[in-house]
Amino acid sequence: MFKINENYQKLPGSYLFSTIAKKVTAYTQANPDKDLIRLGIGDVTQPLAPAVIEAMHKAVDEMGKAETFHGYAPDLGYEFLRNAIAEHDYKCRGCDISPDEIFVSDGAKSDSANIQEIFGPDNRIAVCDPVYPVYVDSNVMSGRTGVYDAKSETWSDVIYMPCTMENGFVPEFPKEAPDMIYLCLPNNPTGTTIPNAQLQGWVDYANKVGAVIIYDGAYEAYISEADVAHSIYECEGAKSCAIELKSYSKNAGFTGVRLGYTVVPKELKCNDVSLHGMWARRHGTKFNGAPYIVQRAGEATYSPEGKAQLKEQVAYYMKNAATIKNGLQDAGYTAFGGVNAPYIWLKTPDHMSSWDFFDYLLEKANVVGTPGSGFGPSGEGYFRLTAFGSFENTLAALERIKKL
Amino acid sequence: MFKINENYQKLPGSYLFSTIAKKVTAYTQANPDKDLIRLGIGDVTQPLAPAVIEAMHKAVDEMGKAETFHGYAPDLGYEFLRNAIAEHDYKCRGCDISPDEIFVSDGAKSDSANIQEIFGPDNRIAVCDPVYPVYVDSNVMSGRTGVYDAKSETWSDVIYMPCTMENGFVPEFPKEAPDMIYLCLPNNPTGTTIPNAQLQGWVDYANKVGAVIIYDGAYEAYISEADVAHSIYECEGAKSCAIELKSYSKNAGFTGVRLGYTVVPKELKCNDVSLHGMWARRHGTKFNGAPYIVQRAGEATYSPEGKAQLKEQVAYYMKNAATIKNGLQDAGYTAFGGVNAPYIWLKTPDHMSSWDFFDYLLEKANVVGTPGSGFGPSGEGYFRLTAFGSFENTLAALERIKKL
Repeated sequence: MFKINENYQKLPGSYLFSTIAKKVTAYTQANPDKDLIRLGIGDVTQPLAPAVIEAMHKAVDEMGKAETFHGYAPDLGYEFLRNAIAEHDYKCRGCDISPDEIFVSDGAKSDSANIQEIFGPDNRIAVCDPVYPVYVDSNVMSGRTGVYDAKSETWSDVIYMPCTMENGFVPEFPKEAPDMIYLCLPNNPTGTTIPNAQLQGWVDYANKVGAVIIYDGAYEAYISEADVAHSIYECEGAKSCAIELKSYSKNAGFTGVRLGYTVVPKELKCNDVSLHGMWARRHGTKFNGAPYIVQRAGEATYSPEGKAQLKEQVAYYMKNAATIKNGLQDAGYTAFGGVNAPYIWLKTPDHMSSWDFFDYLLEKANVVGTPGSGFGPSGEGYFRLTAFGSFENTLAALERIKKL
Repeated sequence: MFKINENYQKLPGSYLFSTIAKKVTAYTQANPDKDLIRLGIGDVTQPLAPAVIEAMHKAVDEMGKAETFHGYAPDLGYEFLRNAIAEHDYKCRGCDISPDEIFVSDGAKSDSANIQEIFGPDNRIAVCDPVYPVYVDSNVMSGRTGVYDAKSETWSDVIYMPCTMENGFVPEFPKEAPDMIYLCLPNNPTGTTIPNAQLQGWVDYANKVGAVIIYDGAYEAYISEADVAHSIYECEGAKSCAIELKSYSKNAGFTGVRLGYTVVPKELKCNDVSLHGMWARRHGTKFNGAPYIVQRAGEATYSPEGKAQLKEQVAYYMKNAATIKNGLQDAGYTAFGGVNAPYIWLKTPDHMSSWDFFDYLLEKANVVGTPGSGFGPSGEGYFRLTAFGSFENTLAALERIKKL
């Protein structure tokens, strides 16, 4: 008789956003007349930029003619896209990343879940707490996290780096040296960033203890402050210790388009073995490229028109972020984030639990947010609102919250 | 110091099609004046059908307007596509598969590589030999295949089911009971199918020994004979033992569009644990849906116009298949397949090795094919040509081969 992967049985509950979706569906079915405003899941609402739409139409036309039809894409992604990434996301920032160190994918979620596959089963992972749940869950599925303790909501073999109000939501070097360090900066869900010098400290630490940093830069486009790195490769020595994940979901609204990339520098090695070669093998064996049309859409985000249009989109969402943060503060809440990230992280009032506040907000204000505890035990007592709604909805949501 | 997944080090050589690509690149760089005809990798050449192009343009326009913009897709895929699949691929064939047993993905390659993740590390896998390399390679990466013997080119813990001229390229029940059986029918690379009664035998066998069948039906659209099942769920009892993978790459030319799906019936269980729930969890944690535009393209393949246009495309490629097979036979080759599949499987002449014949054909006829040994040890002495070229190129390639 075949056997299952028993690690799946260890996972508590369901994926955070699936749970939220189920709760919201149940509420709307019971209250069909209520007008919900969704500031929960980090999904964008603005339409794709005109430059992107134009590029996609052109690519669709190409796919309809034999002379310009495109079948399987190159393993790593099309050169036109990898060259644009190398130029605009790295060379312009003084980072020496070559196009063949860039692996185009169907998004940062897949990459952040799959990247652990090239590492051994005995590596100790360190994660910020709270953080995007995929890092831990994908490691649970691979058996790398030990035993789950339901009371503390922690895994025995995971090193948690608490990020709370007390330390300004900034992770500290763990007491025991980890092998794999997941850093998401600007952070989801807290919206925190760290200054360049502090990021350099993490790179130096990783190189010293022999850890690899998995650097999730999905929210990079939202950085507004000067002293914050847009890529970990702005730090000296990062190429020998860091993998960087990037997404087009948040800077270009590609949540339903699906495009991302991962940088694995060639000098990143475990003894003599190049992680670049391993990830190339993984990509070649288990993935067949992002769609041609989507890669052309990605390329369009780097054109002068595309860049200008995306800058406007980001500004639109950041106006929402300011609206939420100011509105919450006016209403007496303690709120963080929203300056270098599209997330506002608030302290729940009156020591309510995160899920109690979720229910309260859903029922009393018909606003959907995300319970902080869903991102890790140190997220308990916090709550995330996103700036990805329309401006009108965002304003309306805050009016409702102020009235509570 | 972090450790790597040592299983990757066990993989011999590189992925088959990457090796071919490198060899071909080297040849064309050394011989820039030569006009190569590629009948190697199974990549289509005909443009997308007009119904698909129209659907994609419409979907692109929707993504450009706030009212019709689509962000994250539902975990399992859009209902419009899952309903169309359930209706046209299953209900019409008398198979009772519900839309929520269908998981839309970015293609059958990813699914066929990822599906092993939900099974335990100690399962014994059985594969046809020769077969699509991804089944074995993905299991090697997960450490399920034991030790590699370079001489026999086999893995100690893999059960090989030889498919050769002697048994009509049809796998026989293995002597020791496997836990996971990969069946690709119509077969890649041999082009073989089996009659319904024989497929029912495999389902009965799997149910008897407690094995799960991973049924890759990527080439289903090419079946021309009456007594060949289009889905394993046409067999009684298949829902308690079989997972089916389907692709739009070959029936609709989506190799560069990326769309596929996997069916995991709810009654498929290991003791009390539903594999459906496990795959749903995997999908929800590690994948974020196929692009909206691509799912609309998939839906268009089921419209009356779409169906008629795809039927013509398949007929076009099958005319190529007949051209190759007849041409080879005229030239004195022994050739198989090409009736229910777009692949022609030929015996190399004069006991040449598969790779020697690859070089011979590349250098003497400037035709690129795929060495049979790349699909498994029993593929040695065979060679695969695909019907996916243009008709003109296919004719020209056969003329060149006949002149050798």
